[in-house]
Amino acid sequence: MRTGTEGRGNGFSVSTVRETNLQLVLRTVRELAPCSRAAVASDTGLNKTTVSSLVADLMARGLVRETGETSQRRVGRPGVLLALDDTSLAAIGLEVNVDYLAVVAVDLLDRELATRHVHFDARAAGPEASARLMAETVRETAAASALAGRRIVGVSVAVPGLVDPVGTVVLAPNLGWRDVPLGGRLAALLDDPALPTQVDNDGNLGVMAEFRDGTCAGTPDLVYVTGEVGVGAGVLSGGTLLRGASGSAGEIGHLCLDPDGPECACGRRGCLEALAGIGAIVAAAVPDLAAGGLPWTGSEVADLVGAATRRAREGDAVAVAAMERAGTWLGRGLAGLANVVDPGVVVLGGYFVPMGPWLLPSVRAALAEHMFAPDTGGCRVELSGLGFSAAARGGAAAMVHALDTGRLPLPAPAEERVE
Amino acid sequence: MRTGTEGRGNGFSVSTVRETNLQLVLRTVRELAPCSRAAVASDTGLNKTTVSSLVADLMARGLVRETGETSQRRVGRPGVLLALDDTSLAAIGLEVNVDYLAVVAVDLLDRELATRHVHFDARAAGPEASARLMAETVRETAAASALAGRRIVGVSVAVPGLVDPVGTVVLAPNLGWRDVPLGGRLAALLDDPALPTQVDNDGNLGVMAEFRDGTCAGTPDLVYVTGEVGVGAGVLSGGTLLRGASGSAGEIGHLCLDPDGPECACGRRGCLEALAGIGAIVAAAVPDLAAGGLPWTGSEVADLVGAATRRAREGDAVAVAAMERAGTWLGRGLAGLANVVDPGVVVLGGYFVPMGPWLLPSVRAALAEHMFAPDTGGCRVELSGLGFSAAARGGAAAMVHALDTGRLPLPAPAEERVE
Repeated sequence: MRTGTEGRGNGFSVSTVRETNLQLVLRTVRELAPCSRAAVASDTGLNKTTVSSLVADLMARGLVRETGETSQRRVGRPGVLLALDDTSLAAIGLEVNVDYLAVVAVDLLDRELATRHVHFDARAAGPEASARLMAETVRETAAASALAGRRIVGVSVAVPGLVDPVGTVVLAPNLGWRDVPLGGRLAALLDDPALPTQVDNDGNLGVMAEFRDGTCAGTPDLVYVTGEVGVGAGVLSGGTLLRGASGSAGEIGHLCLDPDGPECACGRRGCLEALAGIGAIVAAAVPDLAAGGLPWTGSEVADLVGAATRRAREGDAVAVAAMERAGTWLGRGLAGLANVVDPGVVVLGGYFVPMGPWLLPSVRAALAEHMFAPDTGGCRVELSGLGFSAAARGGAAAMVHALDTGRLPLPAPAEERVE
Repeated sequence: MRTGTEGRGNGFSVSTVRETNLQLVLRTVRELAPCSRAAVASDTGLNKTTVSSLVADLMARGLVRETGETSQRRVGRPGVLLALDDTSLAAIGLEVNVDYLAVVAVDLLDRELATRHVHFDARAAGPEASARLMAETVRETAAASALAGRRIVGVSVAVPGLVDPVGTVVLAPNLGWRDVPLGGRLAALLDDPALPTQVDNDGNLGVMAEFRDGTCAGTPDLVYVTGEVGVGAGVLSGGTLLRGASGSAGEIGHLCLDPDGPECACGRRGCLEALAGIGAIVAAAVPDLAAGGLPWTGSEVADLVGAATRRAREGDAVAVAAMERAGTWLGRGLAGLANVVDPGVVVLGGYFVPMGPWLLPSVRAALAEHMFAPDTGGCRVELSGLGFSAAARGGAAAMVHALDTGRLPLPAPAEERVE
């Protein structure tokens, strides 16, 4: 049961009441579609005249459409059915990582319209060139035939690091970025005041994608672990994303597992990332190919992961042992995470997915060995089915869902404005 | 702005609407007191007649009283001022731990009416004798002169372990308890169907007490660490208590910090608790006195902590080094916690408080060294000012606050019932 806000001298301005009710009707159509205006009125408690006016407004904004079908009713004339308009709008999510730029565009139903995966060396390029490439990629994606005629409702960028609420990348060790005002720079390059942009941590957006569209969708205590050169996590607890006091919740890559361990990009020793990050794994799995060490550029990481999994599949003892050892460290790190937040499911993403067959058994064994109460509910570990697009997809979906939970960013088009 | 629920054919039964509105008025009086009925009506959006009826009901239940003063108004006759009734009701919180039973009774304003701290060996006594002692303690506390004439609105028990939603202690390694239906047994012993009981983890209730009444009250990302023979934590993130998928969130005592470390009560090696729990600290700080090793009974833990802090104060190098070393391990463990949930403040409780002068510097140094981003907001570590009563007090306060957020457990007394 949702409750509408009817203006009744309660201090809300009429325009705020209307915006709140537009969002309410949009959420209701999302849940009930296909549904009649009468069903929306009944579910929200708003009166039918108000609902008709709100629906007209949402249709003018390209958010709701009539399906062309009518409801079967025993009494009265049949109602025209409504659904979300999946033809007019799109949201774009990007993910910048050490060795690639991923792009996903989705419609109002979170369905993928387009995806791209570009090998790209963000560390070598630096923040300014990276922002320019992102802006260019957004423009190309918006102009692509898959998005023909659609209005873009928002752009999201996922970054492997700590991001503040205004979109500044405070610290991204593996990109070598510190205090980069990426959100502001990207907005300036896109130069469209009507186009909202957001920047967030890749783990945070990844777990939102898993919660919405992953194989364990709907799990309220859910963790997504990025498997890149860096390792980070997004943590949902009771269905709510943990951000923490300064936005660095989920930075499990820097859990110290071995004080005498190898050096980490953060300057410490024995961090999870230095023991079980993709760089550490390929250095041990294909030492002959990875001799140059980090940082690798462009497609080198993908090539090294490909070689490592190929050798593991062929039974190469060095490659298999490297992955199993990394899996044990990863399981120990996840036990630390599990003792603190007690998730029901941990989903491993990124390059952990192709290495899954060799990682998973030792991850699960070490997790069960080191977590406090493995026999009281325990914690499942699964591989992501969303590939490298999880964080980008989560960001795009976040821009879509901002429409019905935050402020509606879209003014009604002038030629069709409903007053 | 809170919004009242006026019955308007929305599927709520009238009695549910009334109960919801009673809670709303109670919350409003808690916030605005002293306040007139007119102010409550204005703040809630409920009409004045409804508010008057609800206030009469709350007064009959002993929840609200007239202060005897009137509001100054420029127009109309002055309104009689209302406040929470801090004279009629009380809630009781208990904490059972390895070596004591703590009791706190509070009034409707969370003010302490009575506290007790009883040395008690729960492990030796076992669950049944412990439950009997708790029931007897509740009866004695309720009958004490400080609570004379007050009705008890609820009893809470804090336990150092994993508790399920129906009050069964699933696992409490330091008490040696597993699958103990404590909540049900205590309710049976108290034999009063009108008296709600709850059982929860000591860290969870401790952090609620710190959030309400501690020196860092109101910090939304807050952690309370219990400093007993066992070490556990209660974690607030964004103002919400983390429970996790199976209720074991905050079990930081079993973070593995040293795989080759000493054996822990949980059966593993090198857990935080085995390195920095009170048992580990006193064993190293006063080895001559603590030679018998765990488990200690009754008042032995308190005596050993007293001896250790006395020697540290006198400059005994062994005692000081033991506390500093434990502080370093504790700081490392807190860094793991901080990397996962990013709290703004960690409050150390229990026996960590008297040892604070020797623990804190090394805790803070190790935390800063091992957390991911110590310079982006960081994480303060402070000592609790609530003493050993934090968890008991948090439980008592939880029973009070259940009155205005959950179901009102109190029927109006028959002789004054408002229909």
